[in-house]
Amino acid sequence: MSVAENPDNVTIPKPADHGFNLITPFKYLDKPDLSRAVLLVLNQSLVGMNIPQLWSNTKLHVCADGGANQLYEFFEEDEAARSQHIPEFIVGDLDSLTDETRSYYESKGSIVIPQLTQYATDFDKALTVSRLYFYSEEMRAKVQDYKNIDEHDGLAQLESEVQNPQPGAEDIFVYALGGIGGRFDQTIASIHQLYKISEKYKYIDLIFITSSDTVFLVDKGINYIEYESKGLWNSKDAVPVCGLLPLGSTKVILNTKGLKYDVTDWESDMLGNVSSSNGICGVNGVIVETTEAIVMNIVVDHHTVN
Amino acid sequence: MSVAENPDNVTIPKPADHGFNLITPFKYLDKPDLSRAVLLVLNQSLVGMNIPQLWSNTKLHVCADGGANQLYEFFEEDEAARSQHIPEFIVGDLDSLTDETRSYYESKGSIVIPQLTQYATDFDKALTVSRLYFYSEEMRAKVQDYKNIDEHDGLAQLESEVQNPQPGAEDIFVYALGGIGGRFDQTIASIHQLYKISEKYKYIDLIFITSSDTVFLVDKGINYIEYESKGLWNSKDAVPVCGLLPLGSTKVILNTKGLKYDVTDWESDMLGNVSSSNGICGVNGVIVETTEAIVMNIVVDHHTVN
Repeated sequence: MSVAENPDNVTIPKPADHGFNLITPFKYLDKPDLSRAVLLVLNQSLVGMNIPQLWSNTKLHVCADGGANQLYEFFEEDEAARSQHIPEFIVGDLDSLTDETRSYYESKGSIVIPQLTQYATDFDKALTVSRLYFYSEEMRAKVQDYKNIDEHDGLAQLESEVQNPQPGAEDIFVYALGGIGGRFDQTIASIHQLYKISEKYKYIDLIFITSSDTVFLVDKGINYIEYESKGLWNSKDAVPVCGLLPLGSTKVILNTKGLKYDVTDWESDMLGNVSSSNGICGVNGVIVETTEAIVMNIVVDHHTVN
Repeated sequence: MSVAENPDNVTIPKPADHGFNLITPFKYLDKPDLSRAVLLVLNQSLVGMNIPQLWSNTKLHVCADGGANQLYEFFEEDEAARSQHIPEFIVGDLDSLTDETRSYYESKGSIVIPQLTQYATDFDKALTVSRLYFYSEEMRAKVQDYKNIDEHDGLAQLESEVQNPQPGAEDIFVYALGGIGGRFDQTIASIHQLYKISEKYKYIDLIFITSSDTVFLVDKGINYIEYESKGLWNSKDAVPVCGLLPLGSTKVILNTKGLKYDVTDWESDMLGNVSSSNGICGVNGVIVETTEAIVMNIVVDHHTVN
């Protein structure tokens, strides 16, 4: 159990072992030609985020209920920009969506799908729309034919027709805005989602983006977190702050390569040690080996990203 | 393992069992004559909080390093109010404190204690000042005689002279502003602190206050969370949202009385069930029984609190 300090910039090659998981949390910045990327907007302020960039680097845009209000307010002072950022779908029990927001986006072509069931959260419903949309041409047509979707739980009915994992599917990248940083139980519900979705849908890469950082799950085993350059989301040669957060109800043992404070056989849990205020020194990747899935965050300077 | 829904207002008496823990997270609103309450200001925006009220209902005011800048900025447009909210102490490695902030507060009588050691966080240092301040008249005088405190780790030296638990001490209430809701690893570091401090200092009640909620630890065993009226921090008859969050690296079994969705023998962990978006129906208290310490949050409407 030891800790060693790295210089600010080190090169960490991919693990020699073929069994590693590849994680690309910044793919929307590196390789923005994503055909299977979703921007999922939840009901929390979008202030401080680079929405136009996230928007143009994702294929599908889904607002969960009041998330549409947030999007509408984000472009309050720029009607031209507002009219260029029209979500394909707005879904949820719609108890938060205002009439003004709804009529604006409907007039611009958004599909609004009321789903009244309380057996799923608005987040779940938005994720279901995303899964169905990318499942097949046929299923996409069914989701777009919103007038035939049962208002109570039509999406769940459609979902029961699809298989999981989707046969031969490439990963879907879901960038969720607004799940972390507000009400604390909501933040933890989002982290809970990270764990549940990773368990349930191996082909969905869920990444929360907040006004200060990017939060994602690192799987059990050897992981290579890859990006084109850490300068892409922070000022050149900076050491972006990061944390390795053992929130999955268990003790983990960590080994890392490429962090400011690399750990070896380091036991971590919420009652013992937690690696916060660490940093990213790997210029285009770092290795995190963990005995159980953990949460990782990396600070993003949204001004650099502009 | 069951869940039952309550009406919006129910009266839950204190447990008959004498072995329960009493938790009073809203004591600063209920009974503001607190002689042992600390307001601890960390380096994160204070926008949306009722600082004058928190200030006047606490005895001691300590800024951790850049927390002083946040306080200074909070009163940017009201010099009269700014000059009435002068922290007794500013402590930390002082790499964030601006010259402008420092000279302003020093000129108004704040004691600035540089502590350069990196073996403690600025939060730890502010907590140490608070502990020493309330320990004894003699120790209080030593902390106020700041010119004789070693700049590297003088506080830790003083701390080694005090006993823990402080003999016959009443609880110290520490209301920390700014630890939760920003950088995600910082948020989790704050939760980590909740668990560590509850373990280490039984007589310190640490409560984080964010712009949306109050976050605290609920001990293992039977707990009664008491307040004068839930209308004190939310609109009358509202059901303040709450969550029971098993972040302590283990599975817990929960029994509650007075929540919107009361649970009986309910197993909770981050890989299974988590009670978020629950609510407070107990008009002046609720019971939470848990097999391990868990985190609880309760939403505060700071407008109501005004």
